[in-house]
Amino acid sequence: MTEFSAPADSDASTAVPGPVSPPEAGNDEVPRAAVVDLLAVLAYGELTAFERLAEDARMAPTLVGRATLAQMAGTEIAHFRLLADRLTELGAEPNSAMAPFIPALEAFHATTAPSTWLEGLVKAYVGDGMAADFYREVAEFVDLRTRELISVVLADSGSAAFAVREVRAAIAEQPALAGRLALWGRRLVGEAISQTQHVLAENDALTELLMNGTGGLTGVAAMITRITDKHSERMHELGLDG
Amino acid sequence: MTEFSAPADSDASTAVPGPVSPPEAGNDEVPRAAVVDLLAVLAYGELTAFERLAEDARMAPTLVGRATLAQMAGTEIAHFRLLADRLTELGAEPNSAMAPFIPALEAFHATTAPSTWLEGLVKAYVGDGMAADFYREVAEFVDLRTRELISVVLADSGSAAFAVREVRAAIAEQPALAGRLALWGRRLVGEAISQTQHVLAENDALTELLMNGTGGLTGVAAMITRITDKHSERMHELGLDG
Repeated sequence: MTEFSAPADSDASTAVPGPVSPPEAGNDEVPRAAVVDLLAVLAYGELTAFERLAEDARMAPTLVGRATLAQMAGTEIAHFRLLADRLTELGAEPNSAMAPFIPALEAFHATTAPSTWLEGLVKAYVGDGMAADFYREVAEFVDLRTRELISVVLADSGSAAFAVREVRAAIAEQPALAGRLALWGRRLVGEAISQTQHVLAENDALTELLMNGTGGLTGVAAMITRITDKHSERMHELGLDG
Repeated sequence: MTEFSAPADSDASTAVPGPVSPPEAGNDEVPRAAVVDLLAVLAYGELTAFERLAEDARMAPTLVGRATLAQMAGTEIAHFRLLADRLTELGAEPNSAMAPFIPALEAFHATTAPSTWLEGLVKAYVGDGMAADFYREVAEFVDLRTRELISVVLADSGSAAFAVREVRAAIAEQPALAGRLALWGRRLVGEAISQTQHVLAENDALTELLMNGTGGLTGVAAMITRITDKHSERMHELGLDG
């Protein structure tokens, strides 16, 4: 529990500044509007993740795969419920709170609709991982209760191991798949960053939260570096190095 | 807690024989194969119910409707997990156990794919209700632990009230809808009975369970009467009297 939250395995050359406020203390000074927007975009993200996983489950080559993705979808919708309930507690109407974020999330899914079972798995694994990294960073800037809720809804459901196993097995059998899936992974990260920028461009409360939390543009840049580094680790995990 | 499980509101003219074994005692003599098949068909039913609800959610005219159906789907897949775990405990491999029931359930959904949001709601409400009535009856014939599990997975998630409210509101606004939806309800019950017959025709263990439990053909007929009576009550609830 040092004052700076650099990852334990970082060394001097890769260390980037962590969040400005120490992680043990929540920030109760954050405007309610920012917290509501944060929970709302996360909630709509869970709802669309549910829909995407439920749809991708239909491409599963086996009943095990179909049931596994369906259960991942079930976890997302349970998390949606927690977030919607918290929005209600905060006096916000969940559906109106989510409305401003519909276009960006729909655009993300429309431009990254998987055309194969493996693309669906890669999206589930790296897409969810990237979103989780982002929200976990932002959660450091808000009150403790919100942070704890975000940590619950972003906990890995254990299905990541399934995705990694399936993708690695498929590549081992058919190495030519790796190139196409690696490109797919790059497209996912590109679209995610692009849609996040759209959301921030239209949402002052979230932009301010991010700027204040990271300590300004340099901090935001460092955060993006951390997130893309972790994305690369996940691609490596899948056997999909650039 | 009387010895006979006639519904509290029945009178002499409508009373039909209840299950042969008193509901307080479980029947531990039922062959394991019958219990495995019962849990397996129920599990595959939950998986397809998940898929159907997730797909129908996309027809929702509002974000509330979309999220509500998505959450109903989430409940089904959580129940699927409980049933699959119990199958594993009983030494059965869930996917192989479910395999024989795939054709009948796929045929049911293929012949009853809703073409509108309201048809989807009616199917969710009367379809799930009918399935629940059937499985609850059959659960009376097996061991206590299986019966309790079935009772958990068939518990109304509270979403029935949502379906009833939406359908009634739509009919109040556009009374011409009622005729078509009433026909739809009849088609659902017809297809459900037809597919149940297919399952039983090919599954001796389940057929025997049903015959022994109800006390023979007359008992089965009485059970079908109880289930179709409850179906009529649900249609009435929706404002869809024949």
